[in-house]
Amino acid sequence: MDIYSILEKVKSSKPLVHHITNWVTIYDCANITRCVGALPVMAHAIEESSEMTGIAQSLVLNIGTLTPSIVESMIKAGKKANEKGIPVILDAVGVGATKLRTDKANEILDKVKVNIIKGNEGEIGILAGANAEVKGVESMGSEGENKELAKCLAMAQKSTVVLTGKEDIITNGEKIYTVSNGHEMMGSIVGTGCMLASVIGAFAAVEKDYTKAAACALVCFDIAGELASGESKGPGTYKENFYDELYNLSKDVVEKRKKIEVEE
Amino acid sequence: MDIYSILEKVKSSKPLVHHITNWVTIYDCANITRCVGALPVMAHAIEESSEMTGIAQSLVLNIGTLTPSIVESMIKAGKKANEKGIPVILDAVGVGATKLRTDKANEILDKVKVNIIKGNEGEIGILAGANAEVKGVESMGSEGENKELAKCLAMAQKSTVVLTGKEDIITNGEKIYTVSNGHEMMGSIVGTGCMLASVIGAFAAVEKDYTKAAACALVCFDIAGELASGESKGPGTYKENFYDELYNLSKDVVEKRKKIEVEE
Amino acid sequence: MDIYSILEKVKSSKPLVHHITNWVTIYDCANITRCVGALPVMAHAIEESSEMTGIAQSLVLNIGTLTPSIVESMIKAGKKANEKGIPVILDAVGVGATKLRTDKANEILDKVKVNIIKGNEGEIGILAGANAEVKGVESMGSEGENKELAKCLAMAQKSTVVLTGKEDIITNGEKIYTVSNGHEMMGSIVGTGCMLASVIGAFAAVEKDYTKAAACALVCFDIAGELASGESKGPGTYKENFYDELYNLSKDVVEKRKKIEVEE
Repeated sequence: MDIYSILEKVKSSKPLVHHITNWVTIYDCANITRCVGALPVMAHAIEESSEMTGIAQSLVLNIGTLTPSIVESMIKAGKKANEKGIPVILDAVGVGATKLRTDKANEILDKVKVNIIKGNEGEIGILAGANAEVKGVESMGSEGENKELAKCLAMAQKSTVVLTGKEDIITNGEKIYTVSNGHEMMGSIVGTGCMLASVIGAFAAVEKDYTKAAACALVCFDIAGELASGESKGPGTYKENFYDELYNLSKDVVEKRKKIEVEE
Repeated sequence: MDIYSILEKVKSSKPLVHHITNWVTIYDCANITRCVGALPVMAHAIEESSEMTGIAQSLVLNIGTLTPSIVESMIKAGKKANEKGIPVILDAVGVGATKLRTDKANEILDKVKVNIIKGNEGEIGILAGANAEVKGVESMGSEGENKELAKCLAMAQKSTVVLTGKEDIITNGEKIYTVSNGHEMMGSIVGTGCMLASVIGAFAAVEKDYTKAAACALVCFDIAGELASGESKGPGTYKENFYDELYNLSKDVVEKRKKIEVEE
Repeated sequence: MDIYSILEKVKSSKPLVHHITNWVTIYDCANITRCVGALPVMAHAIEESSEMTGIAQSLVLNIGTLTPSIVESMIKAGKKANEKGIPVILDAVGVGATKLRTDKANEILDKVKVNIIKGNEGEIGILAGANAEVKGVESMGSEGENKELAKCLAMAQKSTVVLTGKEDIITNGEKIYTVSNGHEMMGSIVGTGCMLASVIGAFAAVEKDYTKAAACALVCFDIAGELASGESKGPGTYKENFYDELYNLSKDVVEKRKKIEVEE
């Protein structure tokens, strides 16, 4: 699988990635999008969200600091994205922590065709909900169980699911990619998850096989995370080095370091 | 006083610190919380603020970019925190600059039992208001006067007051800690005050003596500020080094550098 | 032209720069303001926006993540600034991308006397709109055409226009400054445009010739961008070095590196 060629395509075609995202990591989402060569735009007003999606090549929704009115704007933009046929990525931040988050994530999934759903084990588990029960997934945590959860949600939503964890699982319900790149320092800073969704948004804007796009985004993102660790003294310098490494990522390095497996 | 043991307890118990904060430094508040080993969550929607506090171990309120509806959400979360018995920290940003800020800070203090109030001389002076007058504190500025102001507000609110300045004063109206660690470069970047409130929130989540928790948070925070100065060429690199130093802070360094005095 | 003396005046008089800005780069706008020695305050609530402008020395409006209610607050603050006679800077982010942005930027220009309008070629082109047509500016892109566009808008609005690009054009419709400092890495990070508006806001707060103030702000800003490139491995370290370089900028370096031309 030629991972790097997708990154190259992002750099050459500079897709516009429309975000409706949270107020915590909004800068980092924009900056990481720029860092891989795409163009970010953040626009949440309901008066313009659909129109902005209309000029974009992908749409990233992140419910990290959601309000009901922002979600309304997300849905409007999401419908426009569906109409245009550009990918919609949902970062299901905090689903399960409050009723609002769980309800609103489900409302988005009901009203918008989401192409890529990203979350950790807990978030994906909640969204897989009823379906998971039916399939007998009662406890979580092992890699095998996480694969089942991710497949479950992917099939129910006819979508790609990205379940992040020690090993990242990317599946459309049939094909399963497992990525084991990454570094523990990535967890020491706030926003890596959100930034990953932005990079997935950039990759999916140029590669129609969204499952492949998401898997390749993860490999590149995680390799940058590995490289950054070598030069850092802590989370402050780590974050800046991470940006540098992702910006400078070369084909050779990706090929040499990639840890990705596919099951079909 | 074993300052470092509180930081260790933060790292081992990883308390969840719920923030309802401003849009300027929200990322840094989250990131510094992570940096000391706690877990940040930022959630301001009134539909979930109380529920989110329900799963948290402390609540940090910051009125830096307040609106009336955000303050309503803060009060709802604050009442939940009071009910649960977890600490509420109020960072009184800009009190005195506009009527809205002064009124809303006072409204929060009326409706919520705030355990730790943080502000600079001007902000604490305004909040101490009438009480200060009664006690004859008519001019401000000297360390002695600041101690009186802080004690005044602490007694009126039955709360811990953190008055930041060249020397930081922490008091519950009886005991007074004075911390003289810190570095002038801390003032060269935006957000140090807000980040301090987050670190106090993390410390108060694991130490029930809130006055002690706040004082120890200040010592650790300010020592990191001193250490960062040695390696920095300006505010850009200083900030990253500050994160690194706080993240890597060791018991030995804290013991060797701490400048804290107690009066009872 | 003594460029550095304006920066020195900012540092010595520490003007308060009130921002009503976007949620993406709000931290960087505040931090760069601090970096040149001014004091930032960000306050968008309609209940306090006018009062906050009342204690400020300049007002920076940025519509990057506008909503109708934020624009209402901007107009209220803008009127107060006009009443007080302090400069209003409008960063016309994304004008032309959606109807909301174009309409609201025009509404601000109708209701508030904006002293400095900043935008790229596309944004200034849209705002110059009808007037540009009258003057026969039908295609854009060359430096000569950009000068015409900028002059056109400046004359129509009786304002200073800053048109950023490979060469930056600053004009009040009569005098034209062209600044050719800067470095391509400035485009690799999000927020340079927004930060520039903040620095212009700080300079205009202390120099009544707003065209000159804006031109000098650009020279200083862009020279810092050049200096930062030497020490950076990518956009992460570049940004931190940029802050350092702007903070440490000396008179000698500005004099040696400035690339500014004036036509009258």
